[in-house]
Amino acid sequence: MTDRNIHVQPSSGLAVEEQGVEIVERKGIGHPDSICDGVAETVSRALAQTYLDRFGTVLHYNTDESQLVAGTAAPAFGGGEVLEPIYLLIVGRATKSYEGERIPAETIALEAARDYLEANFPYLDVGTDIVVDVRLGEGSGDLQDVFGDEGSVPMANDTSYGVGHAPLSETEQIVKATEQRLNGEYSVDHPEVGQDVKVMGKREGDHIDVTVAAAMVDRHIEDLEAYKDAVASVRRYVEDLATEFTDRTVTVHVNTADDYEEGSIYLTTTGTSAEQGDDGSVGRGNRANGLITPNRPMSMEATSGKNPVNHIGKIYNLLSTEIAKSVVDEVDGIEQLQIRLLSQIGSPIDEPHVADAELVTEDGVTVADIEDEVEAAIDDELADVTNVTRRVVDGELSTF
Amino acid sequence: MTDRNIHVQPSSGLAVEEQGVEIVERKGIGHPDSICDGVAETVSRALAQTYLDRFGTVLHYNTDESQLVAGTAAPAFGGGEVLEPIYLLIVGRATKSYEGERIPAETIALEAARDYLEANFPYLDVGTDIVVDVRLGEGSGDLQDVFGDEGSVPMANDTSYGVGHAPLSETEQIVKATEQRLNGEYSVDHPEVGQDVKVMGKREGDHIDVTVAAAMVDRHIEDLEAYKDAVASVRRYVEDLATEFTDRTVTVHVNTADDYEEGSIYLTTTGTSAEQGDDGSVGRGNRANGLITPNRPMSMEATSGKNPVNHIGKIYNLLSTEIAKSVVDEVDGIEQLQIRLLSQIGSPIDEPHVADAELVTEDGVTVADIEDEVEAAIDDELADVTNVTRRVVDGELSTF
Amino acid sequence: MTDRNIHVQPSSGLAVEEQGVEIVERKGIGHPDSICDGVAETVSRALAQTYLDRFGTVLHYNTDESQLVAGTAAPAFGGGEVLEPIYLLIVGRATKSYEGERIPAETIALEAARDYLEANFPYLDVGTDIVVDVRLGEGSGDLQDVFGDEGSVPMANDTSYGVGHAPLSETEQIVKATEQRLNGEYSVDHPEVGQDVKVMGKREGDHIDVTVAAAMVDRHIEDLEAYKDAVASVRRYVEDLATEFTDRTVTVHVNTADDYEEGSIYLTTTGTSAEQGDDGSVGRGNRANGLITPNRPMSMEATSGKNPVNHIGKIYNLLSTEIAKSVVDEVDGIEQLQIRLLSQIGSPIDEPHVADAELVTEDGVTVADIEDEVEAAIDDELADVTNVTRRVVDGELSTF
Amino acid sequence: MTDRNIHVQPSSGLAVEEQGVEIVERKGIGHPDSICDGVAETVSRALAQTYLDRFGTVLHYNTDESQLVAGTAAPAFGGGEVLEPIYLLIVGRATKSYEGERIPAETIALEAARDYLEANFPYLDVGTDIVVDVRLGEGSGDLQDVFGDEGSVPMANDTSYGVGHAPLSETEQIVKATEQRLNGEYSVDHPEVGQDVKVMGKREGDHIDVTVAAAMVDRHIEDLEAYKDAVASVRRYVEDLATEFTDRTVTVHVNTADDYEEGSIYLTTTGTSAEQGDDGSVGRGNRANGLITPNRPMSMEATSGKNPVNHIGKIYNLLSTEIAKSVVDEVDGIEQLQIRLLSQIGSPIDEPHVADAELVTEDGVTVADIEDEVEAAIDDELADVTNVTRRVVDGELSTF
Repeated sequence: MTDRNIHVQPSSGLAVEEQGVEIVERKGIGHPDSICDGVAETVSRALAQTYLDRFGTVLHYNTDESQLVAGTAAPAFGGGEVLEPIYLLIVGRATKSYEGERIPAETIALEAARDYLEANFPYLDVGTDIVVDVRLGEGSGDLQDVFGDEGSVPMANDTSYGVGHAPLSETEQIVKATEQRLNGEYSVDHPEVGQDVKVMGKREGDHIDVTVAAAMVDRHIEDLEAYKDAVASVRRYVEDLATEFTDRTVTVHVNTADDYEEGSIYLTTTGTSAEQGDDGSVGRGNRANGLITPNRPMSMEATSGKNPVNHIGKIYNLLSTEIAKSVVDEVDGIEQLQIRLLSQIGSPIDEPHVADAELVTEDGVTVADIEDEVEAAIDDELADVTNVTRRVVDGELSTF
Repeated sequence: MTDRNIHVQPSSGLAVEEQGVEIVERKGIGHPDSICDGVAETVSRALAQTYLDRFGTVLHYNTDESQLVAGTAAPAFGGGEVLEPIYLLIVGRATKSYEGERIPAETIALEAARDYLEANFPYLDVGTDIVVDVRLGEGSGDLQDVFGDEGSVPMANDTSYGVGHAPLSETEQIVKATEQRLNGEYSVDHPEVGQDVKVMGKREGDHIDVTVAAAMVDRHIEDLEAYKDAVASVRRYVEDLATEFTDRTVTVHVNTADDYEEGSIYLTTTGTSAEQGDDGSVGRGNRANGLITPNRPMSMEATSGKNPVNHIGKIYNLLSTEIAKSVVDEVDGIEQLQIRLLSQIGSPIDEPHVADAELVTEDGVTVADIEDEVEAAIDDELADVTNVTRRVVDGELSTF
Repeated sequence: MTDRNIHVQPSSGLAVEEQGVEIVERKGIGHPDSICDGVAETVSRALAQTYLDRFGTVLHYNTDESQLVAGTAAPAFGGGEVLEPIYLLIVGRATKSYEGERIPAETIALEAARDYLEANFPYLDVGTDIVVDVRLGEGSGDLQDVFGDEGSVPMANDTSYGVGHAPLSETEQIVKATEQRLNGEYSVDHPEVGQDVKVMGKREGDHIDVTVAAAMVDRHIEDLEAYKDAVASVRRYVEDLATEFTDRTVTVHVNTADDYEEGSIYLTTTGTSAEQGDDGSVGRGNRANGLITPNRPMSMEATSGKNPVNHIGKIYNLLSTEIAKSVVDEVDGIEQLQIRLLSQIGSPIDEPHVADAELVTEDGVTVADIEDEVEAAIDDELADVTNVTRRVVDGELSTF
Repeated sequence: MTDRNIHVQPSSGLAVEEQGVEIVERKGIGHPDSICDGVAETVSRALAQTYLDRFGTVLHYNTDESQLVAGTAAPAFGGGEVLEPIYLLIVGRATKSYEGERIPAETIALEAARDYLEANFPYLDVGTDIVVDVRLGEGSGDLQDVFGDEGSVPMANDTSYGVGHAPLSETEQIVKATEQRLNGEYSVDHPEVGQDVKVMGKREGDHIDVTVAAAMVDRHIEDLEAYKDAVASVRRYVEDLATEFTDRTVTVHVNTADDYEEGSIYLTTTGTSAEQGDDGSVGRGNRANGLITPNRPMSMEATSGKNPVNHIGKIYNLLSTEIAKSVVDEVDGIEQLQIRLLSQIGSPIDEPHVADAELVTEDGVTVADIEDEVEAAIDDELADVTNVTRRVVDGELSTF
């Protein structure tokens, strides 16, 4: 144990990859919960940058409580209509005046939200299909005191913890890549696939089921045949994609709730189910690593929208994941690594109360063989904790 | 008296032009009340047009209850900021489904409002400086029954009245022209004058005071000197303008509440006082003829946002004004004409319960001389009542 | 002319009582516009009282912009349900901190609104049938400067005017008494009549039509027969009442839009049409004297909710009415008196720019006979202007 | 494996009780997230009961998305004030008409929320300190199809999973009991402790730290000494309480963020931090078993507010916990049991895709010894799945 309280120990259980049943989920960027995450984090970055530009330091704020109220839509082959707009309320706290200067926190929030939505949701007419409103209160005075001086390592604002893992299991890789590529390279030639892509992976032994729910965009779907083609095309694409990550057998299911007889299909006007009946909130979806992984310990903490300077839940969730990735890269012989960081309220955030590493080593390697290397790597990363803040502000680290 | 119940009679009092004291006011298009009027009427037209396009008839709606909640701003020479956005809630009723088809009344309203604001308010960033939200309920079932069949003259939906006058007095003409030209030709070369121009005219005997409150736009005003120049320039412009309409003496006052010592001036970031502390509502400002005229009978009815097919208050206010203008144009010898129309609930709107004309004739002309002409002219206009509806839908008639 | 600029002159026209056609309207306390007026004024009084209690002076505020969004209801004989609540948004400005002390303006507003609604609307379950929300911004700094020192007469904050009349015409008296008694003594034994009673009076020559629209309360109406009885009872009551005020012939109409064949009647669950489709705003209904009187000059100014210390529109509307009443009481020989007060921005409010009295004298009396008396009476009332403020804060003066 | 796909297997890791570091958290009923959970679940029960009463079946709804926006308060020894109200927006979907009958879903929601808040928050004046608003949209048509016929076992509406454990570890028991008793028996004689009690437990080896953050209620705290006494009293109470559950050493910390020098203490007017700066949402706090347990697999699914008939995430989270408890009660020799249920979309919910039991047995017992017993017990519980729905509707099962 160093003075950073780093514990390295063997995992008490099997690596996830070796467990009998594994479940993994990812809500795509167009899922109502992810829309909230994305807006909350974008607003957070805009506020942080504004405070930096104006005062050289990030002032108190938290914008991790946005709420989306679903709209009503009448999708139709060839192009339907949004009947009642989605309502998105940006909620949180922000410092609105500092050293005699007033800060336009609410208009910054609105502008950031609009820019984000317009950049990411080509089928959503901001201001018409979605109303964005804002209620940013002043923070409590007490919280402002916890901020450290410029340049120094901030103190933890809470007793909180973060947990991260590396590497991703095959199922995790497939689930993550499926959503990211459908919303990435695939979308270039397939505008009919909306942003609301939800992927569920389930592995039982050596068979993986990948279930995709993809909101189709009505203006690009002429009729039921076109819809069926679009579904089949997604299925083929994901089947191919999966082979990059695994030798296990994979079955892909797309839009399984459809009922062609009843005319019930997953057709949308805007590319998101938020247009019709699906509400959303920050922190209800993906964890900081972009996945929901019931086989692994997870933090309940919402990461998106939190202040990256002193919100310890956010920092430790991102940092533990970064540490896990970095250690696995640097140190040979690790099959699975879990990092857990527990803060001490009032102590510098680079000195966690406990930093706990659980290792599953590869065959022929023992924990003792690599313990020192792992500890040193963790120590390095912790020393560089404020780097996480910078990368969050710069948008280099995704939070959902 | 015809079967349209037209009464023509001498006015019981002096023409306004001859009264000792006359007061006239106009709230410009950027006044918070007028913003609400403008949005309400634009939304109304968009809904009416949608119903016409889809169903060939205007269905029940009323959008005459929008409410604006002021924002907070920090104007500054050279360009300031909106700190907290203006909040505009479009309120009303609309038919959302008809003959099995659903109508996107709320998104139509939002789009119309945004288009209107963007077209008329160059310094207002819609979605950032102003949040536009909507709550359109379904109308009451009963009201829907009152609508007549297509093509026929609708029945009055209420016992209501309208009142109109012609010609405008000198003071009225000056007040109206002042606002319209400051927001028109003057603005082309004077971007520093915002849309919120409020004009008050007061005539005592043969002297007219014109008081202008003009929101200056901070990004076009470099410093206090520039501000003073802008104020002086408005004063000179209005002084010139007034001579077109009167031979009376005119004194022009601009931004009289300014206090240069205290640094208190009428500077805005967006060109409207809605950015800082001034709330607004539909129907609280100008009457249907664009003026507030305490020397003349006025209707309390909000005209903007009302349904132009069957809302009798709206129709009769616009129609009475049109009739007065038209009769004064056609018939010689009229110094002042007031038209008052009183509806009969459940009767066709071209058959008012009373149509009442009060005349002040020019010297040498008696009411008896021109009574028949006047009555015939009124009769013609009433017969053409549905034309008012068409012109409202087409945006040819201003309502505030 | 005194140094208060009082002008007394003969009216340029006929007394309203002698005009051929007269129209008068009153929206009862349960009309959606009046609900807004009542809440706005109650909130105003609560704020004024709080400022007085805490600081000995009334600070800046205005709460004259409340907006009511109608609900949805399913009334039924014997008792129906509110389906979607009425939404009432209290909008305005208030001073929230003063001399280092914070003032709970928003919670005071909510409490006052709730108390008012609970006291006046027995069939409206506050918090369930109606949601009351609040958005009180900080006022603009500039306006705060206009306030005078304690004890002195405040300066006018605007160029504005007020207008008042006395005595009420017969038709006006009938219309006002009809609503007040139906919501007063009649309601004691007739709980079936709701608070939303709208009365329209129309006099043509010597015949008066009184049209009452009275929202019936479903829990007290067992069936259609009971409804018809309730309507007939109101009609008889108003017929009797009218004879107290006039010798003219009077016809009373109640709920004329009913259509028994179609089952279309004016039945409500809460006693107000706000439950179903009728929105409301402050300042859209009755003028400061409780009536809408198109035969008389009216001010567009909303009186309810305005600050009674320095909001000159409010003060002058109330004061001109009080002066008119008082002068008619004190001075014999007046058939009709109209008082108009025009403020001078920046001057003490007891020194109006113009105070203008128009008289119609009784037969055998000339204006010259009583001019001095009238002027002296007006002068007295003006000298006592701050008394209006006190009476408003104490709730002695009604504003709608 | 039975036809319910029940797998019983040894746990791959150590029992939580034997792991080196254990973290447990519980947000009390007055925490902003828990307020949302509580309101959401209360509204859910009220809707379910209404549907049952009127139609004999539970119709489609979900009310799992309420959002709380914090207020502003000025607490003070002896009694402070709420300055700006908390805003609670109930968000979700509900069936508003069925078989030609309309259902007052929104007013039911408001009434249930108010009753819940009034019953549980003695220091919160509903309607003044907190504004409760509601936006319940209609659900999507598709979802309504998934509902089974009355009496039958419903089909799963999603691919989802639930996870539950038994027995609670010592630390878990202490954390849960601390909050429940402080808000229970302790509160009877200690009205100074508000409802917002947050408890964090951390066990390292054989030492347990219990950190309590308890909002003190200002009207019951006269001065700083009284505050210190209140804090000390809570500490002593929890120290005593802990000995009931463990022989390990326990240290109790109460309101550790206080700084008496700076006058920074945890004083509130309403008993909840929602009054000042702490926003909240459904599903962000405690899991279905009332705890946050990062040492154990958790579901991200919000349980509160979900429809208990067919929302598989809710049902399986509650059911897996109930199964775990029941099996541990019935079968001897179990040290720790984890139950995980994975649904099959479109299949009856009593036939999960996988029902997975992981066992840590007591010394001297093998999984093989008790496997059949465990499987049979699970099978019984699954067969009785609809019982969970009934108990949720009746309020017998807590969801947070």
